[in-house]
Amino acid sequence: MTRLLGIDPGLRFMGWGILEIDGNRLRHIADGVIATDGEQPVPQRLKTLHDGLVQLFEAYRPEEAAVEETYVNRSGSSTLKLGYARGVALLAPALAGIAVSEYGAMEVKRAVVGTGAATKDQVEMMVRRLLPGATIRRADAADALAVAICHAHHRQSRLRVAAGTRMA
Amino acid sequence: MTRLLGIDPGLRFMGWGILEIDGNRLRHIADGVIATDGEQPVPQRLKTLHDGLVQLFEAYRPEEAAVEETYVNRSGSSTLKLGYARGVALLAPALAGIAVSEYGAMEVKRAVVGTGAATKDQVEMMVRRLLPGATIRRADAADALAVAICHAHHRQSRLRVAAGTRMA
Repeated sequence: MTRLLGIDPGLRFMGWGILEIDGNRLRHIADGVIATDGEQPVPQRLKTLHDGLVQLFEAYRPEEAAVEETYVNRSGSSTLKLGYARGVALLAPALAGIAVSEYGAMEVKRAVVGTGAATKDQVEMMVRRLLPGATIRRADAADALAVAICHAHHRQSRLRVAAGTRMA
Repeated sequence: MTRLLGIDPGLRFMGWGILEIDGNRLRHIADGVIATDGEQPVPQRLKTLHDGLVQLFEAYRPEEAAVEETYVNRSGSSTLKLGYARGVALLAPALAGIAVSEYGAMEVKRAVVGTGAATKDQVEMMVRRLLPGATIRRADAADALAVAICHAHHRQSRLRVAAGTRMA
């Protein structure tokens, strides 16, 4: 059994979701959102995100983390803010010794729905179907669970490849 | 006497500079650059930047930090990378309980050279004149010292305003 943490980074809301892989089965453990106060200075908001992630590490002990590489097609200042949040999402696991993988939005959609052209609603519907216990109060949590599912798939194929190599 | 840390964030090179304010005098303490290996995964590079800053906090015990708000006029992916580095530069002091201020590039130039239209060379020349002991092996370190000088000026005016208010 391995626990995976998926993160959908954002400065205002950082979605997170924890899965457990048990053989070929995925089990939902928890999901939610770390929210920051837009009125606070950015350093304080980044600390809120970081502290929230550290609390998740302590509460759920994930062994691997995966972060969605959100598509960049916005203004400079909102891209910079996304960068702050992604920076924290990549740094916090690294500081805790948890390996972090990154997946593009298309890869996540393909892993969850079967096509990179899936809509956000289709992704959320499939996440709910694959993980019946999921809470998903905000879409960010569904995206976080989706990237965790994507990591679970890629991870299993890597393990199969590795096992095949060993047998050869 | 107060020690200030200036940071010029970048994913490849993060410039830093430490000053001491003694009454109205500025004294150079140290400056340098934290470099990351472009071949390494981003989470590892962010950890290198974070660990480097934590080492500076321990070695020099700065009481306040200032970060340059670099002008954003680049491609989405390089803005995102700058965001990662600035995120770390804003987070690390916040985690250590060190107040962080942000200054725009124009404000920094105005504080150091007297005009927001100053060139990078003029800024570096003035930094060397104001802080005779500065090492400045890379331009990033000069920019970091410049933002520390800028913070020192703004800080002194705030103190004067506060003192004036108290006397009224």
